[in-house]
Amino acid sequence: MKFFTMKRIPKAAVARLLNYLRFTEEAEREGEEFITAQDIGEKMGINPHLVRRDFAYLGQFGERGKGYRVKNLKDSLRKIMKLDRIWEAVLVGVGNLGSALLRYPGFLERGFRIRYAFDISPAKVGKKIGGVEILPLKELDRVVQREGIKIGIITVPKESAGEIGEKLCKAGIQGIVNFAPLPLRLPPPIKVINVDLSLNLETVAFYLSQNVG
Amino acid sequence: MKFFTMKRIPKAAVARLLNYLRFTEEAEREGEEFITAQDIGEKMGINPHLVRRDFAYLGQFGERGKGYRVKNLKDSLRKIMKLDRIWEAVLVGVGNLGSALLRYPGFLERGFRIRYAFDISPAKVGKKIGGVEILPLKELDRVVQREGIKIGIITVPKESAGEIGEKLCKAGIQGIVNFAPLPLRLPPPIKVINVDLSLNLETVAFYLSQNVG
Repeated sequence: MKFFTMKRIPKAAVARLLNYLRFTEEAEREGEEFITAQDIGEKMGINPHLVRRDFAYLGQFGERGKGYRVKNLKDSLRKIMKLDRIWEAVLVGVGNLGSALLRYPGFLERGFRIRYAFDISPAKVGKKIGGVEILPLKELDRVVQREGIKIGIITVPKESAGEIGEKLCKAGIQGIVNFAPLPLRLPPPIKVINVDLSLNLETVAFYLSQNVG
Repeated sequence: MKFFTMKRIPKAAVARLLNYLRFTEEAEREGEEFITAQDIGEKMGINPHLVRRDFAYLGQFGERGKGYRVKNLKDSLRKIMKLDRIWEAVLVGVGNLGSALLRYPGFLERGFRIRYAFDISPAKVGKKIGGVEILPLKELDRVVQREGIKIGIITVPKESAGEIGEKLCKAGIQGIVNFAPLPLRLPPPIKVINVDLSLNLETVAFYLSQNVG
Protein backbone atom coordinates (compact mmCIF):
# COMPACT_ATOMS: atom_id res chain seq x y z
CA MET A 1 0.00 0.00 0.00
CA LYS A 2 3.06 2.26 -0.34
CA PHE A 3 1.44 4.30 -3.10
CA PHE A 4 -1.59 5.46 -1.16
CA THR A 5 -0.04 5.79 2.25
CA MET A 6 2.63 8.17 1.10
CA LYS A 7 2.07 11.60 2.55
CA ARG A 8 1.58 13.18 -0.85
CA ILE A 9 -0.03 11.28 -3.71
CA PRO A 10 1.92 12.07 -6.90
CA LYS A 11 0.02 14.21 -9.41
CA ALA A 12 0.26 11.49 -12.04
CA ALA A 13 -1.53 9.04 -9.75
CA VAL A 14 -4.34 11.53 -9.11
CA ALA A 15 -4.97 11.84 -12.84
CA ARG A 16 -5.06 8.06 -13.20
CA LEU A 17 -7.34 7.46 -10.22
CA LEU A 18 -9.87 10.01 -11.48
CA ASN A 19 -9.86 8.40 -14.90
CA TYR A 20 -10.24 4.91 -13.43
CA LEU A 21 -13.26 6.10 -11.51
CA ARG A 22 -14.72 7.76 -14.58
CA PHE A 23 -14.45 4.65 -16.76
CA THR A 24 -15.66 2.41 -13.95
CA GLU A 25 -18.75 4.55 -13.42
CA GLU A 26 -19.36 4.59 -17.16
CA ALA A 27 -19.25 0.80 -17.20
CA GLU A 28 -21.71 0.75 -14.29
CA ARG A 29 -24.15 3.02 -16.11
CA GLU A 30 -23.93 0.73 -19.10
CA GLY A 31 -24.88 -2.19 -16.87
CA GLU A 32 -21.53 -3.99 -17.14
CA GLU A 33 -20.66 -6.35 -14.32
CA PHE A 34 -16.94 -6.56 -15.14
CA ILE A 35 -14.33 -4.25 -16.57
CA THR A 36 -10.82 -5.20 -17.74
CA ALA A 37 -7.50 -3.45 -17.22
CA GLN A 38 -6.92 -3.85 -20.96
CA ASP A 39 -10.05 -1.88 -21.76
CA ILE A 40 -9.30 0.90 -19.25
CA GLY A 41 -5.69 1.10 -20.41
CA GLU A 42 -6.79 1.52 -24.03
CA LYS A 43 -9.25 4.26 -23.20
CA MET A 44 -6.61 6.14 -21.23
CA GLY A 45 -3.68 5.54 -23.50
CA ILE A 46 -1.66 3.76 -20.82
CA ASN A 47 -0.24 0.30 -20.28
CA PRO A 48 -2.70 -2.22 -18.74
CA HIS A 49 0.10 -3.42 -16.44
CA LEU A 50 0.11 -0.03 -14.75
CA VAL A 51 -3.66 -0.22 -14.35
CA ARG A 52 -3.38 -3.67 -12.74
CA ARG A 53 -0.63 -2.48 -10.42
CA ASP A 54 -2.68 0.51 -9.27
CA PHE A 55 -5.72 -1.69 -8.67
CA ALA A 56 -3.60 -4.14 -6.66
CA TYR A 57 -2.58 -1.23 -4.39
CA LEU A 58 -6.29 -0.64 -3.84
CA GLY A 59 -6.67 -4.29 -2.88
CA GLN A 60 -8.60 -5.07 -6.04
CA PHE A 61 -7.77 -8.15 -8.07
CA GLY A 62 -9.37 -9.25 -11.33
CA GLU A 63 -11.07 -12.57 -11.95
CA ARG A 64 -9.42 -14.67 -14.62
CA GLY A 65 -11.02 -14.17 -18.02
CA LYS A 66 -13.51 -11.65 -16.66
CA GLY A 67 -11.70 -8.67 -15.20
CA TYR A 68 -12.61 -6.54 -12.20
CA ARG A 69 -16.04 -6.40 -10.59
CA VAL A 70 -17.33 -2.93 -11.49
CA LYS A 71 -19.15 -2.40 -8.21
CA ASN A 72 -16.22 -3.37 -5.95
CA LEU A 73 -13.77 -1.37 -8.01
CA LYS A 74 -15.97 1.72 -7.93
CA ASP A 75 -16.50 1.48 -4.17
CA SER A 76 -12.82 1.18 -3.41
CA LEU A 77 -11.91 4.01 -5.80
CA ARG A 78 -14.53 6.33 -4.28
CA LYS A 79 -13.33 5.46 -0.81
CA ILE A 80 -9.64 6.09 -1.43
CA MET A 81 -10.58 9.33 -3.18
CA LYS A 82 -12.78 10.43 -0.25
CA LEU A 83 -15.78 10.67 -2.52
CA ASP A 84 -17.88 8.43 -0.27
CA ARG A 85 -19.34 11.48 1.49
CA ILE A 86 -21.23 14.71 0.76
CA TRP A 87 -19.11 17.70 -0.24
CA GLU A 88 -20.69 21.14 0.04
CA ALA A 89 -20.02 23.97 -2.36
CA VAL A 90 -21.02 27.55 -3.14
CA LEU A 91 -21.63 28.90 -6.64
CA VAL A 92 -20.96 32.50 -7.70
CA GLY A 93 -22.69 34.00 -10.74
CA VAL A 94 -26.30 33.03 -11.45
CA GLY A 95 -26.43 33.69 -15.19
CA ASN A 96 -27.36 31.05 -17.76
CA LEU A 97 -24.53 28.68 -16.93
CA GLY A 98 -24.89 29.18 -13.17
CA SER A 99 -28.63 28.52 -13.35
CA ALA A 100 -28.03 25.40 -15.42
CA LEU A 101 -25.55 24.08 -12.87
CA LEU A 102 -27.90 24.80 -9.96
CA ARG A 103 -30.46 22.57 -11.70
CA TYR A 104 -27.92 19.93 -12.77
CA PRO A 105 -29.03 16.66 -11.13
CA GLY A 106 -25.64 15.02 -11.66
CA PHE A 107 -23.92 16.89 -8.83
CA LEU A 108 -26.01 15.56 -5.98
CA GLU A 109 -25.94 12.05 -7.47
CA ARG A 110 -22.14 12.23 -7.20
CA GLY A 111 -22.05 13.65 -3.69
CA PHE A 112 -21.86 17.40 -4.29
CA ARG A 113 -24.41 19.74 -2.77
CA ILE A 114 -24.45 23.40 -3.74
CA ARG A 115 -25.49 25.02 -0.47
CA TYR A 116 -25.79 28.65 -1.60
CA ALA A 117 -25.46 30.69 -4.77
CA PHE A 118 -24.28 34.31 -4.88
CA ASP A 119 -24.96 37.12 -7.32
CA ILE A 120 -24.65 40.89 -7.40
CA SER A 121 -28.02 41.43 -9.11
CA PRO A 122 -30.75 42.52 -6.65
CA ALA A 123 -33.28 41.01 -9.08
CA LYS A 124 -31.84 37.54 -8.43
CA VAL A 125 -31.10 37.77 -4.73
CA GLY A 126 -33.71 36.05 -2.56
CA LYS A 127 -34.89 33.72 -5.33
CA LYS A 128 -34.27 29.99 -5.43
CA ILE A 129 -33.07 27.96 -8.40
CA GLY A 130 -32.94 24.19 -8.21
CA GLY A 131 -33.79 24.56 -4.53
CA VAL A 132 -30.71 26.72 -3.87
CA GLU A 133 -31.10 30.18 -2.36
CA ILE A 134 -29.39 33.11 -4.06
CA LEU A 135 -27.63 35.47 -1.64
CA PRO A 136 -26.00 38.87 -2.22
CA LEU A 137 -22.31 38.64 -3.06
CA LYS A 138 -21.35 40.76 -0.06
CA GLU A 139 -22.45 37.92 2.23
CA LEU A 140 -20.05 35.42 0.62
CA ASP A 141 -17.35 35.82 3.23
CA ARG A 142 -19.61 35.44 6.22
CA VAL A 143 -21.59 32.47 4.86
CA VAL A 144 -18.55 30.49 3.67
CA GLN A 145 -16.87 30.91 7.05
CA ARG A 146 -19.99 30.16 9.06
CA GLU A 147 -20.71 26.97 7.10
CA GLY A 148 -17.08 25.91 6.69
CA ILE A 149 -17.55 25.34 2.95
CA LYS A 150 -14.37 24.47 1.07
CA ILE A 151 -15.39 24.30 -2.61
CA GLY A 152 -16.38 27.21 -4.87
CA ILE A 153 -17.83 27.14 -8.39
CA ILE A 154 -17.28 30.23 -10.57
CA THR A 155 -19.83 30.96 -13.31
CA VAL A 156 -19.39 34.71 -13.70
CA PRO A 157 -18.33 36.44 -16.97
CA LYS A 158 -14.62 36.19 -17.64
CA GLU A 159 -14.04 39.86 -16.77
CA SER A 160 -15.01 39.16 -13.14
CA ALA A 161 -13.51 35.69 -12.69
CA GLY A 162 -10.22 36.91 -11.24
CA GLU A 163 -11.89 39.14 -8.67
CA ILE A 164 -14.31 36.40 -7.60
CA GLY A 165 -11.44 33.92 -7.34
CA GLU A 166 -9.69 36.21 -4.87
CA LYS A 167 -12.87 36.78 -2.89
CA LEU A 168 -13.38 33.02 -2.59
CA CYS A 169 -9.82 32.53 -1.34
CA LYS A 170 -10.19 35.26 1.26
CA ALA A 171 -13.41 33.67 2.47
CA GLY A 172 -11.57 30.39 3.11
CA ILE A 173 -12.45 28.37 0.00
CA GLN A 174 -9.71 25.83 -0.77
CA GLY A 175 -10.74 24.41 -4.14
CA ILE A 176 -12.30 26.20 -7.12
CA VAL A 177 -13.95 24.91 -10.28
CA ASN A 178 -13.81 27.80 -12.75
CA PHE A 179 -16.27 27.69 -15.67
CA ALA A 180 -15.42 31.22 -16.87
CA PRO A 181 -13.65 30.88 -20.24
CA LEU A 182 -10.41 32.35 -18.96
CA PRO A 183 -8.00 30.29 -16.91
CA LEU A 184 -7.71 31.43 -13.33
CA ARG A 185 -4.39 31.21 -11.48
CA LEU A 186 -4.28 31.35 -7.70
CA PRO A 187 -1.37 30.72 -5.38
CA PRO A 188 -1.07 27.30 -3.66
CA PRO A 189 -2.47 25.70 -1.59
CA ILE A 190 -5.64 26.82 -3.42
CA LYS A 191 -6.50 24.20 -6.04
CA VAL A 192 -8.12 25.54 -9.23
CA ILE A 193 -9.67 23.43 -11.99
CA ASN A 194 -10.26 25.52 -15.11
CA VAL A 195 -13.04 23.86 -17.10
CA ASP A 196 -12.64 23.99 -20.87
CA LEU A 197 -15.94 23.15 -22.54
CA SER A 198 -14.33 23.20 -26.01
CA LEU A 199 -12.34 20.04 -25.27
CA ASN A 200 -15.37 17.83 -25.84
CA LEU A 201 -15.97 19.37 -29.25
CA GLU A 202 -12.33 18.84 -30.13
CA THR A 203 -12.57 15.17 -29.24
CA VAL A 204 -15.58 14.70 -31.50
CA ALA A 205 -14.01 16.67 -34.35
CA PHE A 206 -10.86 14.61 -34.10
CA TYR A 207 -12.83 11.37 -34.34
CA LEU A 208 -14.74 12.66 -37.37
CA SER A 209 -11.61 13.75 -39.17
CA GLN A 210 -9.89 10.38 -39.02
CA ASN A 211 -10.50 6.72 -39.06
CA VAL A 212 -10.13 6.34 -35.36
CA GLY A 213 -10.15 2.73 -34.16
CA MET B 1 5.51 8.25 -39.21
CA LYS B 2 3.92 4.80 -38.96
CA PHE B 3 1.69 5.85 -36.08
CA PHE B 4 -0.16 8.63 -37.84
CA THR B 5 -0.29 7.19 -41.32
CA MET B 6 -2.00 4.02 -40.18
CA LYS B 7 -5.54 3.90 -41.45
CA ARG B 8 -7.00 3.85 -37.97
CA ILE B 9 -5.40 5.69 -35.11
CA PRO B 10 -5.62 3.53 -31.97
CA LYS B 11 -8.03 4.83 -29.33
CA ALA B 12 -5.24 5.10 -26.80
CA ALA B 13 -3.32 7.44 -29.08
CA VAL B 14 -6.37 9.67 -29.54
CA ALA B 15 -6.68 10.10 -25.79
CA ARG B 16 -3.00 10.98 -25.52
CA LEU B 17 -3.00 13.44 -28.42
CA LEU B 18 -6.00 15.31 -27.00
CA ASN B 19 -4.31 15.53 -23.63
CA TYR B 20 -1.03 16.71 -25.16
CA LEU B 21 -2.93 19.47 -26.93
CA ARG B 22 -4.75 20.43 -23.77
CA PHE B 23 -1.59 20.76 -21.68
CA THR B 24 0.25 22.53 -24.50
CA GLU B 25 -2.53 25.10 -24.85
CA GLU B 26 -2.57 25.54 -21.09
CA ALA B 27 1.16 26.26 -21.15
CA GLU B 28 0.59 28.77 -23.97
CA ARG B 29 -2.10 30.61 -22.00
CA GLU B 30 0.28 30.78 -19.06
CA GLY B 31 2.85 32.43 -21.31
CA GLU B 32 5.34 29.53 -21.22
CA GLU B 33 7.74 29.29 -24.15
CA PHE B 34 8.78 25.69 -23.47
CA ILE B 35 7.14 22.57 -22.10
CA THR B 36 8.86 19.33 -21.10
CA ALA B 37 7.85 15.73 -21.71
CA GLN B 38 8.50 15.13 -18.01
CA ASP B 39 5.92 17.72 -17.04
CA ILE B 40 3.29 16.47 -19.51
CA GLY B 41 3.90 12.87 -18.50
CA GLU B 42 3.40 13.74 -14.83
CA LYS B 43 0.16 15.58 -15.48
CA MET B 44 -1.19 12.65 -17.49
CA GLY B 45 0.12 9.85 -15.36
CA ILE B 46 2.22 8.34 -18.16
CA ASN B 47 5.88 7.73 -18.86
CA PRO B 48 7.74 10.73 -20.35
CA HIS B 49 9.44 8.33 -22.81
CA LEU B 50 6.08 7.64 -24.40
CA VAL B 51 5.42 11.38 -24.65
CA ARG B 52 8.78 11.92 -26.37
CA ARG B 53 8.15 9.05 -28.77
CA ASP B 54 4.75 10.45 -29.74
CA PHE B 55 6.22 13.91 -30.28
CA ALA B 56 9.01 12.46 -32.44
CA TYR B 57 6.32 10.90 -34.66
CA LEU B 58 4.92 14.42 -35.05
CA GLY B 59 8.35 15.61 -36.10
CA GLN B 60 8.82 17.57 -32.88
CA PHE B 61 12.09 17.34 -30.95
CA GLY B 62 12.90 19.03 -27.67
CA GLU B 63 15.80 21.39 -27.07
CA ARG B 64 18.32 20.17 -24.53
CA GLY B 65 17.60 21.49 -21.06
CA LYS B 66 14.54 23.41 -22.24
CA GLY B 67 11.98 21.04 -23.69
CA TYR B 68 9.61 21.57 -26.60
CA ARG B 69 8.68 24.93 -28.05
CA VAL B 70 5.04 25.39 -27.03
CA LYS B 71 4.02 27.17 -30.22
CA ASN B 72 5.51 24.61 -32.61
CA LEU B 73 4.15 21.71 -30.61
CA LYS B 74 0.66 23.19 -30.53
CA ASP B 75 0.65 23.89 -34.26
CA SER B 76 1.71 20.38 -35.18
CA LEU B 77 -0.77 18.81 -32.76
CA ARG B 78 -3.64 20.92 -34.11
CA LYS B 79 -2.65 20.05 -37.65
CA ILE B 80 -2.45 16.28 -37.16
CA MET B 81 -5.76 16.45 -35.29
CA LYS B 82 -7.41 18.46 -38.09
CA LEU B 83 -8.22 21.27 -35.70
CA ASP B 84 -6.57 23.89 -37.94
CA ARG B 85 -9.94 24.70 -39.55
CA ILE B 86 -13.47 25.83 -38.67
CA TRP B 87 -15.90 23.07 -37.66
CA GLU B 88 -19.61 23.86 -37.80
CA ALA B 89 -22.16 22.51 -35.35
CA VAL B 90 -25.83 22.68 -34.43
CA LEU B 91 -27.15 22.87 -30.88
CA VAL B 92 -30.48 21.39 -29.75
CA GLY B 93 -32.21 22.68 -26.61
CA VAL B 94 -32.06 26.38 -25.79
CA GLY B 95 -32.59 26.26 -22.03
CA ASN B 96 -30.12 27.67 -19.52
CA LEU B 97 -27.23 25.45 -20.50
CA GLY B 98 -27.92 25.79 -24.23
CA SER B 99 -28.09 29.59 -23.93
CA ALA B 100 -24.84 29.64 -21.98
CA LEU B 101 -23.10 27.56 -24.66
CA LEU B 102 -24.43 29.79 -27.46
CA ARG B 103 -22.74 32.72 -25.71
CA TYR B 104 -19.57 30.81 -24.80
CA PRO B 105 -16.69 32.65 -26.50
CA GLY B 106 -14.33 29.71 -26.13
CA PHE B 107 -15.87 27.69 -28.96
CA LEU B 108 -15.12 30.10 -31.78
CA GLU B 109 -11.65 30.76 -30.40
CA ARG B 110 -10.99 27.04 -30.77
CA GLY B 111 -12.46 26.71 -34.25
CA PHE B 112 -16.06 25.69 -33.54
CA ARG B 113 -18.95 27.71 -34.91
CA ILE B 114 -22.51 26.92 -33.83
CA ARG B 115 -24.45 27.68 -37.02
CA TYR B 116 -27.99 27.13 -35.78
CA ALA B 117 -29.81 26.27 -32.57
CA PHE B 118 -33.07 24.32 -32.40
CA ASP B 119 -35.87 24.29 -29.86
CA ILE B 120 -39.49 23.16 -29.69
CA SER B 121 -40.69 26.28 -27.85
CA PRO B 122 -42.42 28.77 -30.19
CA ALA B 123 -41.44 31.50 -27.72
CA LYS B 124 -37.77 30.88 -28.49
CA VAL B 125 -37.92 30.21 -32.23
CA GLY B 126 -36.90 33.20 -34.35
CA LYS B 127 -34.80 34.77 -31.60
CA LYS B 128 -31.03 34.99 -31.65
CA ILE B 129 -28.68 34.17 -28.76
CA GLY B 130 -24.98 34.91 -29.06
CA GLY B 131 -25.66 35.75 -32.71
CA VAL B 132 -27.10 32.28 -33.40
CA GLU B 133 -30.62 31.95 -34.81
CA ILE B 134 -33.05 29.60 -33.07
CA LEU B 135 -35.03 27.43 -35.49
CA PRO B 136 -37.97 25.07 -34.88
CA LEU B 137 -36.91 21.49 -34.16
CA LYS B 138 -38.86 20.18 -37.13
CA GLU B 139 -36.41 21.94 -39.46
CA LEU B 140 -33.41 20.11 -38.00
CA ASP B 141 -33.28 17.47 -40.72
CA ARG B 142 -33.51 19.85 -43.62
CA VAL B 143 -31.01 22.39 -42.26
CA VAL B 144 -28.37 19.82 -41.24
CA GLN B 145 -28.53 18.19 -44.66
CA ARG B 146 -28.53 21.47 -46.58
CA GLU B 147 -25.53 22.81 -44.67
CA GLY B 148 -23.69 19.51 -44.44
CA ILE B 149 -23.13 19.96 -40.69
CA LYS B 150 -21.53 16.98 -38.94
CA ILE B 151 -21.46 17.92 -35.23
CA GLY B 152 -24.43 18.20 -32.88
CA ILE B 153 -24.55 19.50 -29.29
CA ILE B 154 -27.37 18.23 -27.06
CA THR B 155 -28.54 20.48 -24.20
CA VAL B 156 -32.10 19.20 -23.73
CA PRO B 157 -33.40 17.72 -20.45
CA LYS B 158 -32.34 14.13 -19.92
CA GLU B 159 -35.82 12.78 -20.72
CA SER B 160 -35.48 13.99 -24.32
CA ALA B 161 -31.79 13.30 -24.92
CA GLY B 162 -32.32 9.85 -26.46
CA GLU B 163 -34.95 11.06 -28.90
CA ILE B 164 -32.84 14.05 -29.96
CA GLY B 165 -29.80 11.81 -30.41
CA GLU B 166 -31.75 9.66 -32.87
CA LYS B 167 -33.06 12.72 -34.72
CA LEU B 168 -29.52 14.05 -35.09
CA CYS B 169 -28.30 10.72 -36.49
CA LYS B 170 -31.13 10.56 -39.00
CA ALA B 171 -30.32 14.09 -40.13
CA GLY B 172 -26.75 13.02 -40.93
CA ILE B 173 -24.88 14.23 -37.85
CA GLN B 174 -21.79 12.08 -37.23
CA GLY B 175 -20.50 13.32 -33.89
CA ILE B 176 -22.47 14.35 -30.79
CA VAL B 177 -21.46 16.16 -27.61
CA ASN B 178 -24.15 15.32 -25.07
CA PHE B 179 -24.49 17.64 -22.07
CA ALA B 180 -27.69 16.01 -20.81
CA PRO B 181 -26.88 14.28 -17.51
CA LEU B 182 -27.65 10.83 -18.88
CA PRO B 183 -25.15 8.98 -21.07
CA LEU B 184 -26.34 8.56 -24.62
CA ARG B 185 -25.46 5.42 -26.58
CA LEU B 186 -25.72 5.38 -30.35
CA PRO B 187 -24.53 2.74 -32.80
CA PRO B 188 -21.19 3.25 -34.61
CA PRO B 189 -20.03 5.02 -36.69
CA ILE B 190 -21.75 7.81 -34.71
CA LYS B 191 -19.30 9.16 -32.13
CA VAL B 192 -20.83 10.35 -28.85
CA ILE B 193 -19.03 12.26 -26.10
CA ASN B 194 -21.07 12.30 -22.90
CA VAL B 195 -20.00 15.32 -20.86
CA ASP B 196 -19.87 14.79 -17.12
CA LEU B 197 -19.74 18.14 -15.34
CA SER B 198 -19.31 16.45 -11.94
CA LEU B 199 -15.82 15.23 -12.83
CA ASN B 200 -14.30 18.66 -12.22
CA LEU B 201 -15.82 18.80 -8.76
CA GLU B 202 -14.48 15.33 -8.02
CA THR B 203 -10.98 16.40 -8.99
CA VAL B 204 -11.11 19.37 -6.65
CA ALA B 205 -12.59 17.33 -3.80
CA PHE B 206 -9.89 14.72 -4.21
CA TYR B 207 -7.15 17.35 -4.00
CA LEU B 208 -8.72 18.86 -0.89
CA SER B 209 -9.03 15.52 0.84
CA GLN B 210 -5.39 14.57 0.53
CA ASN B 211 -1.93 15.97 0.49
CA VAL B 212 -1.62 15.81 -3.25
CA GLY B 213 1.84 16.67 -4.56
